Amino acid sequence: MVKQIIIVRKDIKMGKGKTAAQVAHASLGAYKKAKKLSPKLIAEWESEGEKKVVLKGTLEDLINFKQWADAKKIPSYMVSDAGRTQLAPGTVTTLGIGPEKDEELKETKILKLL
Amino acid sequence: MVKQIIIVRKDIKMGKGKTAAQVAHASLGAYKKAKKLSPKLIAEWESEGEKKVVLKGTLEDLINFKQWADAKKIPSYMVSDAGRTQLAPGTVTTLGIGPEKDEELKETKILKLL
Repeated sequence: MVKQIIIVRKDIKMGKGKTAAQVAHASLGAYKKAKKLSPKLIAEWESEGEKKVVLKGTLEDLINFKQWADAKKIPSYMVSDAGRTQLAPGTVTTLGIGPEKDEELKETKILKLL
Repeated sequence: MVKQIIIVRKDIKMGKGKTAAQVAHASLGAYKKAKKLSPKLIAEWESEGEKKVVLKGTLEDLINFKQWADAKKIPSYMVSDAGRTQLAPGTVTTLGIGPEKDEELKETKILKLL
C-alpha cells in the first residue's frame, strides 16, 4: 500500500475551511515532488485510490518529520501560509509526505489522526 | 487572478481530518485535469501562490456546479468516498473546480466559505 501523509499543526488555530485548504496545499506540493522523483510509486498510489492520511502535530513535529523525510529521501513539502487571512504571513501550517510505501512511513504512527 | 474552488458537502457529517482529505482529493483531481487541458493557466496559478477557496454546499449544489463546469469546459473533479470510514461507499463528498480565472468563477459566489 502506498499512501500520502499530511500533518496539520494542532498548536495554531485554523478553521475547518482554512485547515482543508492548507492540507490541499501540502498534498499537491508533495505530490508534485514525488511525481518527478518516483513516478512508479505515484502510479501505484493512483491505482490504489490515492490514500491520504491527515495527522496532527506541533510545529516541532512538522520540523522533525521534514528532516526525517529529507534524510530518507522521501519527497515532502512544508506549507507556509501567505497570511492573507487568520494567520501571520509565513506561519508554517502543514507538511505533506509522499506518496510513499506504507512500511517507509511507520514512524509517523506516533502522531494522532486529525 | 487564477484560483481553484473546492466545494464541500455540508449536508453530510465529516470530521475535520476527513473533510481535509476529501478536499485534497478534489484539489488534486481537478489540478490533474487542468494541467492537461490548460497548462498556461496552471503556470499562472502557481506563480500567484496556488490560491484555493473552500466553499460549502448541498449535494444538489455539487451536481449543479459539476454540470455548470462541464458546460463551460472548466476542468472539474467530483470525489466519491471509498467508504472505508465514516461514510457509505460511493458517497459524493467534494467537487474541485479549476484552477480557472477568477472572472469565470463568479457564479460560485452564491456559496459560503466553509
